[in-house]
Amino acid sequence: MKFIHDDFLLSTETAKRLYHGFAEPMPIIDYHCHLSPQEIAEDKVFDNISQLWLSGDHYKWRLMRSCGIDERYITGDGSDKEKFLAWAQTIEKCPGNPLYHWTMLELKRYFDYDGVLSSKNAEEVWEHCNRVIADQKMSAREIIAMSGVSVICTTDNPEDDLKWHKMLAGDSSFKTKVLPAFRPDKAVKITAEGFGKYIGLLEERFGCPIASYVDLLQVLKESIRYFQEMGCRTSDHGLDRIPYRPVNAEEADRILVKALRGEGLTADEVEAYQTRLLLDLGELYADLGWVMQLHYGAKRNNNTLMYEQLGPDTGYDCIAGVKCGEKLPALLNALEIKSCLPKTIIYSLDPTDNAMIDTVCGCFHEAGIRGKVQHGSAWWFNDHLAGMRHQLSGLAESGVLDNFVGMLTDSRSLLSYTRHEYFRRILCGLMGEWIDQGLYPPDMETAGAIVENVCYYNAKELFNL
Amino acid sequence: MKFIHDDFLLSTETAKRLYHGFAEPMPIIDYHCHLSPQEIAEDKVFDNISQLWLSGDHYKWRLMRSCGIDERYITGDGSDKEKFLAWAQTIEKCPGNPLYHWTMLELKRYFDYDGVLSSKNAEEVWEHCNRVIADQKMSAREIIAMSGVSVICTTDNPEDDLKWHKMLAGDSSFKTKVLPAFRPDKAVKITAEGFGKYIGLLEERFGCPIASYVDLLQVLKESIRYFQEMGCRTSDHGLDRIPYRPVNAEEADRILVKALRGEGLTADEVEAYQTRLLLDLGELYADLGWVMQLHYGAKRNNNTLMYEQLGPDTGYDCIAGVKCGEKLPALLNALEIKSCLPKTIIYSLDPTDNAMIDTVCGCFHEAGIRGKVQHGSAWWFNDHLAGMRHQLSGLAESGVLDNFVGMLTDSRSLLSYTRHEYFRRILCGLMGEWIDQGLYPPDMETAGAIVENVCYYNAKELFNL
Amino acid sequence: MKFIHDDFLLSTETAKRLYHGFAEPMPIIDYHCHLSPQEIAEDKVFDNISQLWLSGDHYKWRLMRSCGIDERYITGDGSDKEKFLAWAQTIEKCPGNPLYHWTMLELKRYFDYDGVLSSKNAEEVWEHCNRVIADQKMSAREIIAMSGVSVICTTDNPEDDLKWHKMLAGDSSFKTKVLPAFRPDKAVKITAEGFGKYIGLLEERFGCPIASYVDLLQVLKESIRYFQEMGCRTSDHGLDRIPYRPVNAEEADRILVKALRGEGLTADEVEAYQTRLLLDLGELYADLGWVMQLHYGAKRNNNTLMYEQLGPDTGYDCIAGVKCGEKLPALLNALEIKSCLPKTIIYSLDPTDNAMIDTVCGCFHEAGIRGKVQHGSAWWFNDHLAGMRHQLSGLAESGVLDNFVGMLTDSRSLLSYTRHEYFRRILCGLMGEWIDQGLYPPDMETAGAIVENVCYYNAKELFNL
Repeated sequence: MKFIHDDFLLSTETAKRLYHGFAEPMPIIDYHCHLSPQEIAEDKVFDNISQLWLSGDHYKWRLMRSCGIDERYITGDGSDKEKFLAWAQTIEKCPGNPLYHWTMLELKRYFDYDGVLSSKNAEEVWEHCNRVIADQKMSAREIIAMSGVSVICTTDNPEDDLKWHKMLAGDSSFKTKVLPAFRPDKAVKITAEGFGKYIGLLEERFGCPIASYVDLLQVLKESIRYFQEMGCRTSDHGLDRIPYRPVNAEEADRILVKALRGEGLTADEVEAYQTRLLLDLGELYADLGWVMQLHYGAKRNNNTLMYEQLGPDTGYDCIAGVKCGEKLPALLNALEIKSCLPKTIIYSLDPTDNAMIDTVCGCFHEAGIRGKVQHGSAWWFNDHLAGMRHQLSGLAESGVLDNFVGMLTDSRSLLSYTRHEYFRRILCGLMGEWIDQGLYPPDMETAGAIVENVCYYNAKELFNL
Repeated sequence: MKFIHDDFLLSTETAKRLYHGFAEPMPIIDYHCHLSPQEIAEDKVFDNISQLWLSGDHYKWRLMRSCGIDERYITGDGSDKEKFLAWAQTIEKCPGNPLYHWTMLELKRYFDYDGVLSSKNAEEVWEHCNRVIADQKMSAREIIAMSGVSVICTTDNPEDDLKWHKMLAGDSSFKTKVLPAFRPDKAVKITAEGFGKYIGLLEERFGCPIASYVDLLQVLKESIRYFQEMGCRTSDHGLDRIPYRPVNAEEADRILVKALRGEGLTADEVEAYQTRLLLDLGELYADLGWVMQLHYGAKRNNNTLMYEQLGPDTGYDCIAGVKCGEKLPALLNALEIKSCLPKTIIYSLDPTDNAMIDTVCGCFHEAGIRGKVQHGSAWWFNDHLAGMRHQLSGLAESGVLDNFVGMLTDSRSLLSYTRHEYFRRILCGLMGEWIDQGLYPPDMETAGAIVENVCYYNAKELFNL
Repeated sequence: MKFIHDDFLLSTETAKRLYHGFAEPMPIIDYHCHLSPQEIAEDKVFDNISQLWLSGDHYKWRLMRSCGIDERYITGDGSDKEKFLAWAQTIEKCPGNPLYHWTMLELKRYFDYDGVLSSKNAEEVWEHCNRVIADQKMSAREIIAMSGVSVICTTDNPEDDLKWHKMLAGDSSFKTKVLPAFRPDKAVKITAEGFGKYIGLLEERFGCPIASYVDLLQVLKESIRYFQEMGCRTSDHGLDRIPYRPVNAEEADRILVKALRGEGLTADEVEAYQTRLLLDLGELYADLGWVMQLHYGAKRNNNTLMYEQLGPDTGYDCIAGVKCGEKLPALLNALEIKSCLPKTIIYSLDPTDNAMIDTVCGCFHEAGIRGKVQHGSAWWFNDHLAGMRHQLSGLAESGVLDNFVGMLTDSRSLLSYTRHEYFRRILCGLMGEWIDQGLYPPDMETAGAIVENVCYYNAKELFNL
């Protein structure tokens, strides 16, 4: 039997029927990812499998480093082929790791390779994949088309001119919608190095001075208006922790001015500023019917030497283990109380927050909206078989599975669309087990509709697509 | 096959033998619930299934709201039938949620309905249930009798005159013992709105002024004495978090007087007062052989607008995610050190506390008492299949399963006695798996005795019933 | 079927092949335990099974106390036989507890007893075991030899003269290497009772006054040098929590001097001192290629009355539930930044830290070293079937299982070597499931090599044995 076969991860007949009958045919809406709109617009062509796999994937880099592989063969000046061989030698030693499955799924789906990659066949796989890449002129758009993706939401800064999105919107030959998503992290992270410079960049982009909190908000509002015109349906925030220290705009102004003067801020000031800004932005999102995505709980750049060498997002982040059970509902309530809580999806990097988040979501609703406040799919380090089952089970245990907005890739890699397949197989596997164990009735019409909703229709509805 | 059948949740032969041979015949001791003694004493009769199911059940309300159903059909002025139809349309979309199972179990046990409720058959089920209610004059006492309940411990305030309990105790026609349980939360929550007024109410009830901490303690002591006379065997505390800031009675007095003067208290003062009061009450409980139940870790009333509209306990609570691993053993030790630690059951709303609680319980014992300090059954948001398996496994992994005091409903609904059945099936399912996987020997005599102890005899013994 | 049979815990054919073909033949490296080198050097002989089982095992004591057994039959003046009978009556009531399995495994492996211990056969087992002990003159060394142990690392204080290790090293008749491990907890716990006296002891042992932090470090350095000569390959630290408050040596000196003058320290001072000392010691460990083991998260001696009666390590400890996700990576980074991070193994007593620790480990690497920073095997209260599966799965999900350094006993009992067997069966059970569920290919050569690495070769390599 092939390793990746039709019924991979589907251990029961019901699971197979749910997957092949309902999940598999659904198009993909990837409502949060880090793909480059430029690469899609320019339809980037790749030279070899290492460029696709290893040029930017810090998930893979971590595993290779863990095996004691020299950085030269990871991000250094080793050849693409040497890097590929180093990866092959790493992944064969990783039972239980999602990258094992992702690797083999990607080989099967994009290169129709049936074996499993190992140090033994690495040379053969290297030749095979590169031949496919050359023969098919495998490009960004072709990969997306092969993957059945109907909508992509990228991740974009407020100052972005969105020219690649504009170009894509005007190109009727490419069927997938590529929409921007608003990620104002640099305006939120008031103590980050270069914050003052960043404010200067915003001033330049929008042609107005930012001397006060009101000015900043005005500029962000203008950016949001522009994103909205360009088809944006969602914002995203990457937060160390959920802030909640409510202050008025005057106090936020005082803190911003202090920061712009280069003076240090106290932790309370930072939290107050961030709270105020999130509340004001949330109101704007609600006005437009956007979905607000909140990612929190990562501790980034933990290895200073490697940060200095490689910069951020290179594989040196971890779960912070901060507790936000007091502040998360308070923040949402502060928006709700003014009747301007937008649709919201919450992701924590700490899987021990799952139950807390599920119960917080259960406190905020709106008539006519299914799943207005949601617990997002297992994120980053949790994006694996057990992690996804845990998130899905938890959500079902304290909420309504049928309302769940489902999977996103959150990925920098074009080949990651197989993660939607991976998610769908896991979802159908879980529901199949429930039905076969007598925990849910064998009503394939209802069960199938739930699967379709979670795989596609809920995202379409929640994001107004 | 019917959805609720004889072997629901029992996947192995051993599980079936344990359930049908040992668990099923045991009477129910519901040692903590929120039933109204008045409704039992007056033998309240219900008009229709919505009154039984939807008039007070915030678990159901949350799920309905999550589906975007208008509040009118939840707690508003929609008709009982409209509300029932809204519930039917909600629950069919909830695979993996315990309410799915509870709903179908209740339909089977109390209405002998074999199907599963869905929007398709909602009309039929509405008619069917209401016919049964009318034919059988389904009343509070009849439901309790049908459920095989031998003892009920309600939840009562210190100022309660317990007249309904008295009436029930004097009525030999009703076989179930209905005992009060002492819940002095309003005396503990010193910063709650209306605390001063509440102290006035206590003064009136017991006919003595409360000008000092000593006065308050005296009044509570009198109440405890009265509860004891009325058959009480247990107290219960609902705490935001476990306090531990030991102070002497003089300091507690200073804080109480400050609060009664309407002055604000610091967080430290609140904790000090609560610590002192819990220690003093614990001593009184120990004297009488009562079981002290501690529930902690809920964050309540997170949606201010809905709180203003509907009040507390209406579906807007969540897991607080506070960490009490330092204070919980310290509080118990402070009682133990004076040799006045009562029998204790600890419940946290945060399932990630399970392992910590299990190991804390393992530090406090008394010769002659099995399971003196216990980790209570999976509470509230955790009261589901995986949550109960997690609590049971954790308890077994670091303690003695045979000592576990077992299930309680903690419910406001008379139909919730099926949750004991649900628990028993899960317990027997788990033990059946262990035996069939060779993790425990197939000694049905010992295994069966453990099941009987957990389902009935341990509660009888621990609560002196 | 016997309870402990060849395929105990091995539910699939693949699991059986992995265990019997690869795991079972591997020698044991027990790189962290609390065995007494004196007992091994003197080859202590035991009189009866209670002396082996019940004279120092606080795991068993906790369970017995939980059953309400009088302390007389636990640590008191009850006879050895009475204590054994009390244990038999306890353990039969403990389905789901690892001690059930350990007990039966030990009876089988060391006494070839096929039944399960219960109150019914307790007399027979007592006689049987004592006969075996008498016949075989069962001694410390014989038990170790029977267990296939190639290396033992004990736990030793810096002032220890290691004379028993020296004696063992010189005795060619005993094949197992018994190496010291450096555990300077008493020098780290600056606020512990008797700290000043302990410093005096160090002064005496090394013949130089300790008036400053530099002096203390010099003495510890000398001790480390001596341990290194005696074959030491690892240090171990037991920490309440992971400290991180970096200060210079002058500040550490000020704090130490203050403590030696008997003045109280603030929590910040304690943390600063401990941070400085850990960083300085870590540098020394790195120089010598030692593995630094960090155990944290226990809250000890929670029952004051029993502590006064029995002292520490008698069964009154619990999981502290402290969160160290911010400080753990910071501490490691502070070493890494000076290029003196030693190989490190991290253990938390709180299983909800697992995912955090796994991701922290993923941030620190060194070319040429597989698994330089590792998440240690499930510790103490987590050392059970589910706990080990959870640790193994988590490690595999975010890292490379093939790099894992595997099991240790951390035990005071000679019979605990069966815990390595228990671990190996669980490891093979898990990998067997993965393969049989199609999650990893049925490549027995690679899978078997991973099993051998985790069971033996990785520890041999990491500890330079």
